Amino acid sequence: MKQIHLGAFEINGVNLTSQGLWARPDHHSVRYKDIDYWIELARLLERGCFDFLFLADSYAYPTLHGETPGFVFEQAAEIPKNDPMLLIPALAAATEHLAFAVTTSTTFEAPYSNARRFATLDHLTKGRVAWNVVTTSSPVVGDLFGHDRFVPHDERYAIAEEYLQLSYALLEGGWDDDAVIADKERRIYADPTKVHRIVHHGKYFDVEGYFNSEPSPQRTPVIFQAGASSSGRAFAARNAEAVFLQGADAATLKKQVSDIREKAAEVGRDPQSVKTIVGLSVVVGESKEAAQRKLDDYLSYVHEEAARLYYAQMTGIDFASLDPNADLGSIPTEQGRTQVERYAGKSVREAAADFIRHGMREFILLGTPEEIVDQIQELVEATDIDGFNYTPFVSPGSYEEFVDQVVPELQRRGLLRTAYEPGTFRERLFGAGQRRLPDSHPGAAYRHDSLAVTR
Amino acid sequence: MKQIHLGAFEINGVNLTSQGLWARPDHHSVRYKDIDYWIELARLLERGCFDFLFLADSYAYPTLHGETPGFVFEQAAEIPKNDPMLLIPALAAATEHLAFAVTTSTTFEAPYSNARRFATLDHLTKGRVAWNVVTTSSPVVGDLFGHDRFVPHDERYAIAEEYLQLSYALLEGGWDDDAVIADKERRIYADPTKVHRIVHHGKYFDVEGYFNSEPSPQRTPVIFQAGASSSGRAFAARNAEAVFLQGADAATLKKQVSDIREKAAEVGRDPQSVKTIVGLSVVVGESKEAAQRKLDDYLSYVHEEAARLYYAQMTGIDFASLDPNADLGSIPTEQGRTQVERYAGKSVREAAADFIRHGMREFILLGTPEEIVDQIQELVEATDIDGFNYTPFVSPGSYEEFVDQVVPELQRRGLLRTAYEPGTFRERLFGAGQRRLPDSHPGAAYRHDSLAVTR
Repeated sequence: MKQIHLGAFEINGVNLTSQGLWARPDHHSVRYKDIDYWIELARLLERGCFDFLFLADSYAYPTLHGETPGFVFEQAAEIPKNDPMLLIPALAAATEHLAFAVTTSTTFEAPYSNARRFATLDHLTKGRVAWNVVTTSSPVVGDLFGHDRFVPHDERYAIAEEYLQLSYALLEGGWDDDAVIADKERRIYADPTKVHRIVHHGKYFDVEGYFNSEPSPQRTPVIFQAGASSSGRAFAARNAEAVFLQGADAATLKKQVSDIREKAAEVGRDPQSVKTIVGLSVVVGESKEAAQRKLDDYLSYVHEEAARLYYAQMTGIDFASLDPNADLGSIPTEQGRTQVERYAGKSVREAAADFIRHGMREFILLGTPEEIVDQIQELVEATDIDGFNYTPFVSPGSYEEFVDQVVPELQRRGLLRTAYEPGTFRERLFGAGQRRLPDSHPGAAYRHDSLAVTR
Repeated sequence: MKQIHLGAFEINGVNLTSQGLWARPDHHSVRYKDIDYWIELARLLERGCFDFLFLADSYAYPTLHGETPGFVFEQAAEIPKNDPMLLIPALAAATEHLAFAVTTSTTFEAPYSNARRFATLDHLTKGRVAWNVVTTSSPVVGDLFGHDRFVPHDERYAIAEEYLQLSYALLEGGWDDDAVIADKERRIYADPTKVHRIVHHGKYFDVEGYFNSEPSPQRTPVIFQAGASSSGRAFAARNAEAVFLQGADAATLKKQVSDIREKAAEVGRDPQSVKTIVGLSVVVGESKEAAQRKLDDYLSYVHEEAARLYYAQMTGIDFASLDPNADLGSIPTEQGRTQVERYAGKSVREAAADFIRHGMREFILLGTPEEIVDQIQELVEATDIDGFNYTPFVSPGSYEEFVDQVVPELQRRGLLRTAYEPGTFRERLFGAGQRRLPDSHPGAAYRHDSLAVTR
């Protein structure tokens, strides 16, 4: 039985994916502005042998036809929301093993400063950082950043591809591994023959010069990606080291797992060099029925209109404006194909009902710890999935429940580590010694000597 | 006798302003990649009742005629250098009172994400953050960010002015003070009538939408600025709450202090609402002569060529290419007037000798703790300066020397607090209750209701 990888899915805001749950007395997310709230969570995750804390992000908030209704603010639906990257240094200092994945967008952040931020984080965390690469389709964000045009989906991925090539050039090619000597006796900090000028003149970016940051433990952060559209999947197959899949059942998930491995192999990568992750929520109860009642109670706090607009924000699709019997997958949308494809074959009515209830949660498992771990084990065996991004209902309650009751059962069956091995996040995913991108990853080609990438 | 404000001048890299000192056995800056190095420093500063840690930054490194000579890397002259903002969350979590000022550039960072980062920091630090606003003149940085044109000096300040107006609109005008209710009983997080859409269509920036971050303790971070050119000074007079001055002697400094106060009054601000800060280094010894020997030993590590290129990077002026007898102030330069005006009336030879020896240090005071505090006291009395940015030679040695020997003498004479008052950084600078920008500050005009700023 292979061991699973375990992440915790979070956002630096008031609601996660269930808009309205902030108001529960047992949900303490209103403390999100307080670093102690996050430090307590990080230490809890480390007690539960989690691999990583995953920090989602977007500058977007729900808007329909240019308007943001009042209930969006009343329910704190995606707004307010603070920068998540700035949590990581404090959490890294308060933990020893937990890794941190954080989202930044190739559509709105400058590549050079983004690369320097990740290099800095990799230094400060001693190699415990991952980058969740997203492209931004939201016109709301376009308005906030003053972009005067909507970037079409496929072009966003073309930009992202060039962005990553440039990031690899900086992170992998800027300094050789042995460039820094720091020899005080000889008064030589770095060997200038091993620091390389990056020359990138592409279609979207022009960068010439040296990278500010010296080599960090992992160099390129572990690359996460979640795109489920065809261009998103192709991008993930080329670049991602961990992908978030969206299978709502074991059969779909299994297909997605093998599909991403095949696509990675097609571009010359080791198919096992891409870890597959899917969303997981659990509700522990003395029985499935008791857990179901608890789940219903959680979901009774979801604000339906806020959930509908949250979906519209991500996809451009307003359930209320569509024929309830139409096939949702047939609705054309420039934006948010990931979220639409999740409901392939479902009617608008079914999709709306499911999304309003569950938000972006994937598997929701109910029952006793044994029953839950049975289901996890079956899912892993049936699909070859590598791990889960645990999505809480309330915090820290959902985490405590999982760490105190489910984790011991996972460990008893050999599904989860019982202690951390030392090493970087990449080593935890791919084995001791694998601190750097593997040779079959396209980023590895950017090592050595000066580079001139011109397209 | 008024109490002084005390900052520590640092950079997230290997050398501060004396290129080459990294190699000293008693200088531990090679540990800059280790968060523990910074946590130890922050706690030491807090023990010494410092007001703030000041983190300088630039993406630039020394380049002359498009070339970066090998000795730049050998001496780690401004490169490598990591992102400094990412130190703050960890240091805030490890301290209780120390504030943090960090540099970002209005030339290269997007205003919306920059404002969200500072709002996030203000939340996480509970109001202990300041923004050192810089404009970037370096063509090196332009090449790294793909800007295809050199931004002329005065236009850079016009951009900065609009950037700050937009930042005030987001930070001060996005949410009313009482917008967040977080009433779980009534299930109302924020009052939508108190969250305002920002509409800014200016000459340089277009931003429309809501600000992601809810009100933080200080809202706008304390604004620091260092521009010494006429447009820089005008910008500081309008916007800065603390300015770094560059007087090399008491008479010049006194003139600068009164000049900035006058200029602030001219634009309708309280002249005391701008604190004046100047650089300070000290070397403690049993006598002035002993301290001088210690200083000479420090400076013997300066690499002359690296220092010369460091100056050229900041100013565009290469001492070696000029007539040594020419008046440096007469040399035309688009870039770096701040650094040139520092040597007004000096010949190229004198300026070069001074800069190579001292870097950007202002006052260097030598002697016993008593002799040093005598000089500080005289300087404060003669110039009305409000505080000092302490610039170490070695770390943590220069800090330990100051905290253990000079601080007690400052405290004995009532020149420095003996314990921290509670409150935000702005309150520490301007008094209890002054958490927010004062009404006479231009940022205060951006409060209340929806804003339409169109120029």
